[in-house]
Amino acid sequence: MVKQHRRLQVKLSESLKPLIPSKDLIFGRHFTDHMLTIEWNSKDGWSDPIIQPFGKISLEPSAMVFHYSFECFEGLKAYKDKNGKLRLFRPDMNMKRLNRSAARLTLPVSIIWDVIGGFSEDELLECLKKLIRLEERWVPAERGFSLYIRPTLIGTQASLGIGPNSRALLFIICSPAGPYYKTGFSAVKLLSTFENVRAWPGGTGDAKIGGNYSPCVRPQIEAAEKGYQQNLWLFGPDDEITEVGTMNCFVLLDNEYGETELVTPPLDGTILAGVTRDSILQLARTWNEFKVSERKITMSEVVNALKQGRLREMFGSGTACIVTPIKIINYRGEDLAVPLDPNDPSSNAGPVTRRISDTLMGIQYGEIPHEWSVVLN
Amino acid sequence: MVKQHRRLQVKLSESLKPLIPSKDLIFGRHFTDHMLTIEWNSKDGWSDPIIQPFGKISLEPSAMVFHYSFECFEGLKAYKDKNGKLRLFRPDMNMKRLNRSAARLTLPVSIIWDVIGGFSEDELLECLKKLIRLEERWVPAERGFSLYIRPTLIGTQASLGIGPNSRALLFIICSPAGPYYKTGFSAVKLLSTFENVRAWPGGTGDAKIGGNYSPCVRPQIEAAEKGYQQNLWLFGPDDEITEVGTMNCFVLLDNEYGETELVTPPLDGTILAGVTRDSILQLARTWNEFKVSERKITMSEVVNALKQGRLREMFGSGTACIVTPIKIINYRGEDLAVPLDPNDPSSNAGPVTRRISDTLMGIQYGEIPHEWSVVLN
Repeated sequence: MVKQHRRLQVKLSESLKPLIPSKDLIFGRHFTDHMLTIEWNSKDGWSDPIIQPFGKISLEPSAMVFHYSFECFEGLKAYKDKNGKLRLFRPDMNMKRLNRSAARLTLPVSIIWDVIGGFSEDELLECLKKLIRLEERWVPAERGFSLYIRPTLIGTQASLGIGPNSRALLFIICSPAGPYYKTGFSAVKLLSTFENVRAWPGGTGDAKIGGNYSPCVRPQIEAAEKGYQQNLWLFGPDDEITEVGTMNCFVLLDNEYGETELVTPPLDGTILAGVTRDSILQLARTWNEFKVSERKITMSEVVNALKQGRLREMFGSGTACIVTPIKIINYRGEDLAVPLDPNDPSSNAGPVTRRISDTLMGIQYGEIPHEWSVVLN
Repeated sequence: MVKQHRRLQVKLSESLKPLIPSKDLIFGRHFTDHMLTIEWNSKDGWSDPIIQPFGKISLEPSAMVFHYSFECFEGLKAYKDKNGKLRLFRPDMNMKRLNRSAARLTLPVSIIWDVIGGFSEDELLECLKKLIRLEERWVPAERGFSLYIRPTLIGTQASLGIGPNSRALLFIICSPAGPYYKTGFSAVKLLSTFENVRAWPGGTGDAKIGGNYSPCVRPQIEAAEKGYQQNLWLFGPDDEITEVGTMNCFVLLDNEYGETELVTPPLDGTILAGVTRDSILQLARTWNEFKVSERKITMSEVVNALKQGRLREMFGSGTACIVTPIKIINYRGEDLAVPLDPNDPSSNAGPVTRRISDTLMGIQYGEIPHEWSVVLN
């Protein structure tokens, strides 16, 4: 394997932008001074990576990405710890998933697709780290703040014939981000969504590709118009819970056998394999205080648990929010009140939800030593 | 309604490209000298349309189209008849469908979404006609050749937060195209596809959006590796026929009641509402020679009809090919031989398939007078 990251070229920006005051940060609106780009074509494989000034991408109007949605992406964050060190959280997971998503769309990947000049996950991660080190001043120091990192891979072949792309572009852009909840948690209200489905068996629900996202905006607007922040995506005749908005979904309940159980739907092809999801499962299994299950869970199980006082907590999980407590689910016309903290009626998150969030943030900001947190400098 | 097409600006290219010799045409590879662009933003609505030299589109790397697949498109053709007149085929259908696709993705449309400076289907069509008239020299005169027209609408807001776009770009590009079959029909072999599913109730199978296309490339490659040109997309436990590759699907059979029946799956939300599909249905109903049905049809019905000698013809339909005869379907490991022409064993298309193709081409090239053919000059 050629060490591509050693061939990384750096073209520095001639002028640096002013930093955005923390209070003015809007998610995904402001970007750092540089971006990383790596071109690919089917003849020569991957070109040398380049860090260059952040700027526009110029493509033929016939580029496949504009017509047939050849696009996949990742989202991860860089954190600054109290000693000023930069940290990533399990970035290897994002590199692996990017490869899997690309393979689903026949975009170039290191292992499966691209036999010419393969660009490995490790090499891409080294390039990403160089970019983040260069953009260090953009990583906010306040707890809860971070630098959101968006690796993106698009098919750029200029042709309207549908088939695998002969050209592609991988780029990484970075955006300083504030805490998801500015004042503690904000528990959300969900609308169970029947008219639309997010994913299905044999589809692409487990790939982080553009095509999974735009169709969810209209249902989200419809939910918002009714006063609900997110869609609860259900599937099948027995209303299996799948995802919440763009998050994985967790249910903590006392099950019918009297066990306390943390349940999340299994990776059956319709569910995104979230890095936060995986981390929560691993953490909870390490705690060994309650049963942890990846299994099918239906709305009728949730409704029954609620009515019998066995439902403890529900939350969504994702890179942006870590965890989002759920307080209301509208299901077939009825608002179901999901418990938050029984010992603290003023709380807006249950104790397990809160503990998971605190633990993950502790690891991400280097306060809790853990192999998941990768120090950059 | 403001007459936007009267505000159309034309910026001519300083130099014109050489035409591509007919024999060298590859679908979607070569483009004309100009393109039409119309920008939109949520504050001002649609800007004045501009015909300008064909050239690259430059977007922020955070543009929503690169990440969340905010993109929908159309495909139609301009034909040159034997008198040199330019003709379109039912272009109003494409304008309407573009609006419907855009609405599904919360991209700006004339009626549903955009209340500011609405751009109507009629106005867009007038702009499109001006572009085609300007590019007249690019419309091939040979029968079977045409100028393929690709209206495309993309979300260009520079932001990673998922929601409706505040900016969008509509563009139309044109590509000279050869006949789909250079030497008569070419009947295709289909592989029934079980591992992947093209569309699902509550999904986006009825919208012409980018996200429906890239996921179909890997299954298409897998079919090709096994010697089949296209996927036969099935759905549900009883293997309903839905689409063929990127085409609608038709079955002509003698049904169990002894009637000859032309069947195509209904527009239930999982099927693209093809312009050719609709035209075939209308034509066949006008002929009034056999029953014409939009109804569910399963593989077991096809297999039974085949075994009992009642299956007559099958074909796919679409703008690119008009009709594509089907000669083989691999279904659960068995190659089923679909009849072609019983009276002519050397034929590669059945008589009804051929008659539909001839009639539609006759209309498209102005040889058969019909309101569907819209003369431009």
